Amino acid sequence: MSFSGLDSALTGPLFATSAMAEIFSDRSRIAAMLRMEAALARAQGLTGLAAAVDAIPAEALDLDAIGRETALAGVPVIPFVKAVQALLPPDLERVFHRGATTQDVLDTALVLQIQQAFALVRADLIAILDGLAGLAEAHARTPCVGRTYGQHAAPVTFGYKAAVWLSGLADAARALPSLRKRLLVASLGGPVGTLAGFGQQGPEILDAFADALGLGSPPIAWHTNRTRMVEAGAWLATLIGALAKMGADVAHLASTEVGEVAEPHMPGRGGSSAMPHKRNPVSSTIILAAHAAASGPLTSLVNAMAAAHERPVGLWHGEWNALPQLFGFASGALREARALAGGLEIDAARMRANLDATHGLLFADAAAAALARTHGREAAHGLVEAAAGEVRRTGEPLIEVLRRQSDEPLEAAFDLQPSVDAAALWTERAIADARAVRERL
Amino acid sequence: MSFSGLDSALTGPLFATSAMAEIFSDRSRIAAMLRMEAALARAQGLTGLAAAVDAIPAEALDLDAIGRETALAGVPVIPFVKAVQALLPPDLERVFHRGATTQDVLDTALVLQIQQAFALVRADLIAILDGLAGLAEAHARTPCVGRTYGQHAAPVTFGYKAAVWLSGLADAARALPSLRKRLLVASLGGPVGTLAGFGQQGPEILDAFADALGLGSPPIAWHTNRTRMVEAGAWLATLIGALAKMGADVAHLASTEVGEVAEPHMPGRGGSSAMPHKRNPVSSTIILAAHAAASGPLTSLVNAMAAAHERPVGLWHGEWNALPQLFGFASGALREARALAGGLEIDAARMRANLDATHGLLFADAAAAALARTHGREAAHGLVEAAAGEVRRTGEPLIEVLRRQSDEPLEAAFDLQPSVDAAALWTERAIADARAVRERL
Amino acid sequence: MSFSGLDSALTGPLFATSAMAEIFSDRSRIAAMLRMEAALARAQGLTGLAAAVDAIPAEALDLDAIGRETALAGVPVIPFVKAVQALLPPDLERVFHRGATTQDVLDTALVLQIQQAFALVRADLIAILDGLAGLAEAHARTPCVGRTYGQHAAPVTFGYKAAVWLSGLADAARALPSLRKRLLVASLGGPVGTLAGFGQQGPEILDAFADALGLGSPPIAWHTNRTRMVEAGAWLATLIGALAKMGADVAHLASTEVGEVAEPHMPGRGGSSAMPHKRNPVSSTIILAAHAAASGPLTSLVNAMAAAHERPVGLWHGEWNALPQLFGFASGALREARALAGGLEIDAARMRANLDATHGLLFADAAAAALARTHGREAAHGLVEAAAGEVRRTGEPLIEVLRRQSDEPLEAAFDLQPSVDAAALWTERAIADARAVRERL
Amino acid sequence: MSFSGLDSALTGPLFATSAMAEIFSDRSRIAAMLRMEAALARAQGLTGLAAAVDAIPAEALDLDAIGRETALAGVPVIPFVKAVQALLPPDLERVFHRGATTQDVLDTALVLQIQQAFALVRADLIAILDGLAGLAEAHARTPCVGRTYGQHAAPVTFGYKAAVWLSGLADAARALPSLRKRLLVASLGGPVGTLAGFGQQGPEILDAFADALGLGSPPIAWHTNRTRMVEAGAWLATLIGALAKMGADVAHLASTEVGEVAEPHMPGRGGSSAMPHKRNPVSSTIILAAHAAASGPLTSLVNAMAAAHERPVGLWHGEWNALPQLFGFASGALREARALAGGLEIDAARMRANLDATHGLLFADAAAAALARTHGREAAHGLVEAAAGEVRRTGEPLIEVLRRQSDEPLEAAFDLQPSVDAAALWTERAIADARAVRERL
Repeated sequence: MSFSGLDSALTGPLFATSAMAEIFSDRSRIAAMLRMEAALARAQGLTGLAAAVDAIPAEALDLDAIGRETALAGVPVIPFVKAVQALLPPDLERVFHRGATTQDVLDTALVLQIQQAFALVRADLIAILDGLAGLAEAHARTPCVGRTYGQHAAPVTFGYKAAVWLSGLADAARALPSLRKRLLVASLGGPVGTLAGFGQQGPEILDAFADALGLGSPPIAWHTNRTRMVEAGAWLATLIGALAKMGADVAHLASTEVGEVAEPHMPGRGGSSAMPHKRNPVSSTIILAAHAAASGPLTSLVNAMAAAHERPVGLWHGEWNALPQLFGFASGALREARALAGGLEIDAARMRANLDATHGLLFADAAAAALARTHGREAAHGLVEAAAGEVRRTGEPLIEVLRRQSDEPLEAAFDLQPSVDAAALWTERAIADARAVRERL
Repeated sequence: MSFSGLDSALTGPLFATSAMAEIFSDRSRIAAMLRMEAALARAQGLTGLAAAVDAIPAEALDLDAIGRETALAGVPVIPFVKAVQALLPPDLERVFHRGATTQDVLDTALVLQIQQAFALVRADLIAILDGLAGLAEAHARTPCVGRTYGQHAAPVTFGYKAAVWLSGLADAARALPSLRKRLLVASLGGPVGTLAGFGQQGPEILDAFADALGLGSPPIAWHTNRTRMVEAGAWLATLIGALAKMGADVAHLASTEVGEVAEPHMPGRGGSSAMPHKRNPVSSTIILAAHAAASGPLTSLVNAMAAAHERPVGLWHGEWNALPQLFGFASGALREARALAGGLEIDAARMRANLDATHGLLFADAAAAALARTHGREAAHGLVEAAAGEVRRTGEPLIEVLRRQSDEPLEAAFDLQPSVDAAALWTERAIADARAVRERL
Repeated sequence: MSFSGLDSALTGPLFATSAMAEIFSDRSRIAAMLRMEAALARAQGLTGLAAAVDAIPAEALDLDAIGRETALAGVPVIPFVKAVQALLPPDLERVFHRGATTQDVLDTALVLQIQQAFALVRADLIAILDGLAGLAEAHARTPCVGRTYGQHAAPVTFGYKAAVWLSGLADAARALPSLRKRLLVASLGGPVGTLAGFGQQGPEILDAFADALGLGSPPIAWHTNRTRMVEAGAWLATLIGALAKMGADVAHLASTEVGEVAEPHMPGRGGSSAMPHKRNPVSSTIILAAHAAASGPLTSLVNAMAAAHERPVGLWHGEWNALPQLFGFASGALREARALAGGLEIDAARMRANLDATHGLLFADAAAAALARTHGREAAHGLVEAAAGEVRRTGEPLIEVLRRQSDEPLEAAFDLQPSVDAAALWTERAIADARAVRERL
Repeated sequence: MSFSGLDSALTGPLFATSAMAEIFSDRSRIAAMLRMEAALARAQGLTGLAAAVDAIPAEALDLDAIGRETALAGVPVIPFVKAVQALLPPDLERVFHRGATTQDVLDTALVLQIQQAFALVRADLIAILDGLAGLAEAHARTPCVGRTYGQHAAPVTFGYKAAVWLSGLADAARALPSLRKRLLVASLGGPVGTLAGFGQQGPEILDAFADALGLGSPPIAWHTNRTRMVEAGAWLATLIGALAKMGADVAHLASTEVGEVAEPHMPGRGGSSAMPHKRNPVSSTIILAAHAAASGPLTSLVNAMAAAHERPVGLWHGEWNALPQLFGFASGALREARALAGGLEIDAARMRANLDATHGLLFADAAAAALARTHGREAAHGLVEAAAGEVRRTGEPLIEVLRRQSDEPLEAAFDLQPSVDAAALWTERAIADARAVRERL
């Protein structure tokens, strides 16, 4: 089956890594459900049961049969429990799953999957932070056009641009450690969240259960308090968004007319079924596709927060589709961003040529500042605005046009160096901040 | 792989029908891509190639291998074309896929899948319209509480409520025939949409191509005009929304305190892994889960409309995840709505008891209207408001309380019959309208 | 107050037209509510009341006072009714608003506002369709680069590009007439939708009411059947999306390196507070901002469909924020698109220069097709791919590189004319289709 | 103007507090923009200019005139700068706004507004945390039905339910302190973010500027790194979602058939324009309306992250509509939640009656556990499932039906006390956790 492009054999490998797909595979989910049940047994001191459950390989369960019964039962845990019981000796069968409810199993299993997924994300993040810091450092003084609203604005450096990407990623990364702590929390509440079947021992059993899984223990059941899920989804959307900023820039810088960067060359990548000369920016495409898809699942997670009473009708089920997709899209976007951060090809000569393409208009801001000293700011702005029109019409350098209007010395205003120097300062500052974030990740 | 709950072996069968899953399976997609290529050959008069392509079973292609190469190439059509060429004799291999671009293949294949999917949706819609019309008719005079803001408001009939559901579905169905016409349109434009490789014959080849597939022919390439996709997605979201209205009502009517309906009994359905007495409304759950998930993919489709030039970076790829998921969720929601429309259990006695539960407050509106005749509308409203407070405190019937305040004869105001009669009129009208829609579907 | 940029005195005029703002102003809403109440009186034969209500100017009501009471009452209709009653003689006061409920007033008033708003949208659409058809015709044979994934792909014409924009708008326009019919429908159902207060006369009163307002009459109350609202919202989002396709293209074509078009010159537009030389594409900015905002309100409308029973808790209130915002954003985007369609500046020489910028790579597809005649398709593709690499490295024209590899005559493949001819055919076809749509609008 | 229900004189006061509306009013925005410019002057040592700007009241600027020019200019800062300059002496006029760009002004002003808005949110949060902790404590041992999927499931206490609400709010609150730190950061980068006009002094001027405003100083310009905006929006959506959980529960508990709580009585609130007896849950309505609207603006913010280069076309403008609306909706939802937390009326007798309504089925889980001791778990589950059916048919108490099937002593299973005791434990634990969060808020 493949309703999602992420799950398609044809397009899935494009959008998500196989490592992430493995974590969210049905087989891994079943394995996580078994781990949850084993920990539940362990927390109750049922070490025999725990060992027996641990010994069941995920492969021993017939996924398709469980799926068929789920369509009837409404939740996968009922057929799952029956299927596991069939593999246990009668005395253990009786106490299997004791005290837990469906949501305990599914939510805890999901948290275990998230825990593994975060490890993948963290490794990619570190590599990207390192790659971008390297890129920013290497090109800290490589002059490059700064563009606003698609128009040449003023000079920056390519390292500065990479440092802005780096800073976006660092901001996303900065929130991860505390998010991980808030999120990686076990779910065990029984039918209505109170673990009433365990009497006064509920809290200590929950704590032992969480401990057995290496997870935190929540103050109270979170069956219908879905803040964690939205926090996770929002963080992933933000991360994908930070990557999309880089993807949007790279796609434009790699466009034919601009040509300042090229995505890392990979034989066979970026061709066209029709056009033999094409070299499409596939990494940017994957990143921007992930971004276009990211707000959707987040919407579902926000919707699902109005979860009535101890279990809602539909909203929790609606969640099942959301968070794993965000991890899927994030994995592909991270993989591609890592490739870009590590191997983006920079054409410094082309950057230099583009800086000159507008005959000095890039320095209009600096020229106006210089002229303002004698002419006043408003008048200087007007002078330069008019001169810019002439430059556009005639192609004559701006400095020449302005020299006809004013005796103010203007050479310094047309000097690239101050822009490069300023950009380099910020680049360094952003790298230092990102390094500090990386250390705490 | 399973990032989407729709694609999971465990939960997929709960959310989507196997018929819909089959249509959107990778195997079916490959089959549709082959149909597209055969039609392209046929439109060029390459009947030998067309026959050869027709003879290739989807199973002959290695999906996983194509997927692996897609991750490199960026689109699945490049490895697909190579894989098909490997199965063709050299003379046919040369002309295979001639004139087309990746997007022609994927968009046309998607339209072919949508065509089949619409047929499933239409059949379910007809069954639901029939079922709800039957339910509305059968209970046209079964009195039932009308509720606003969760509060008892005034009497209606259960048939009237079913007629409102029916009317929502009829509204969605009403738009389908023209949507189908606008949407089921072939895509063939070549690299940049102009089919320049075919010279002046482009339009007639496109027409022949569309004709060979039983699809409409667009005036111009729609590679980057995505109105069709958004229209389709919005319609599916609206359909799911119309089902959600019914699902929300059923879930509440089936709740323990209300108890006016029960979902059709299916052995094994609606149980709890923890609570042996539970009978959960699984159909409503699935419908409302579909609704919670529906706006997400629609958002991606709207985002994707800003498609630059002749092919955008990322936005089109982002679409791939969206429309099939909406069909998936629609299929499960329709299946469950069909079950509800055909087998909802109505407890007319409980409806009657609930009507009496507020000691006549349901007739407050009618009583106020009666009192307004002598007391004026404002004063009557105030009188009844105060009396309502006393009824709530004491449980005394409203009519008795009011009789102490006014000599106005009030029996008629507390008569259920006018409400039933009024409700029945609308029910009939809605059924007639829905029948007309159904005939044109 | 200004939580929305649309309502801000500072930024509202940028995002929405004053004509649309006028339609959705509080004053106009009150006027529409009064029109609704007058029609309700008229439908009951209360012509004196109708005349009295008609005579009340919207200005006679204290909006702020109504607003303050709304915050208490929960809906604006309760204080509105009281405020109007205070202006009526006692005998009319008693029968004012008789039979109706809050939602009848607000929904019918909204439909009346939508009716006016659609007239504005239609006028803009006609102007844009005309403008784009003119642009497409004028430049039907103006050669221009076709771009995919940001890369030069193959030649098209600028008229062809305009025709694709036209076709997207025509697709949106095509759906408007039937949408208007389905949507411009009165709401009158009373407390629970059955108009029970009118006994058997409910349907004829509704029909008369709708007729008095020039609206359609629904088969049954649509208080909790919100398909109409979602249809309207989805249509507006699609319209904005179709404009965004044009906006995205214009912004890129107007970018410094591409420079093929400029937004129409308006003195004072597009400057920068810092940079005197800037000419920012303000029209595209407004259109793309509208697009970025469009999916949000649509999500709220989809969410609101699960409206329980005869009036939901919150979902209907949540709607109030959504549809008017979509009309607001549409109005600004349409205004700017109209300006673009009517006055976009085309630089045909720059288009021509850009076509030559890649030394013939744009003809690679045609060259490969020519070579395929003797070399076979796969080999030809490979030959051209390799040659393209050389062109990129050396800047030597592709035709020269290929001539060293093959004796196949290649001049015809490097001829722009066939691309121009092909593009012109589609342009004509799209214009004819759009004209037909325009006639029925 | 009123495209948003938040900005309407009629409905705005319902959805947002006047304090929050004041913060996001155009007047306050202008005031914040002036504060920003004064700080910029101060950071450059231009104390005369700073004092002069400080002395300009927001009222001195003509908002409508600025708005009209904004529609032309594309951004409000250009006319704003001109309008302020007109109020300054020529020598100060020349250096006003020096070094800054439009986005510096608007983003920093927005951050200053957010700073004030967070203070309001924090105060409401504290009151709600206190109110809910009080509610949870007061009813820690008030038995109440636990409900899953709308069905009676097992006993809890009302205090436990309040503690779950509390826990959701505490989770949202937990993230606020670090969010505030990451978010309340100044923006000052000049045209392309590098503050090149200030040469090597850029970083120290930014630090001084931020310091003058009591804001943090970012490592590098965040003009096109929008993580902060999405983090803020996601947090507000999560907060509203946590409130929606409470709103959904309250609306249902207040519904006629359940009747376990009533919203705090306010004279004039919750009436109906048609039905004098109605008492609608207005607070829940406002909270749930906010929730239905919340995901929309968040989507816009996520979309806006793909911000190209140093300033994007449209995406940043699209943001302007989003974050203030989320603050607006949050303010109304918080106000109502505060009213609920402080004054919700609890009907413990009705809770008790509802517990008995299903003749002991609520204890089915406990009964099955008891029977499992002798019968085994599967058989016990089956026994109770069958008995539940009989109870539903006949109304006979479950304990009686089961006694006919088994000799196992069952009294303990039907004892409410263990459920109450278990619930109380968690309630206490959640209160302790929330108190710790509150201390750090």
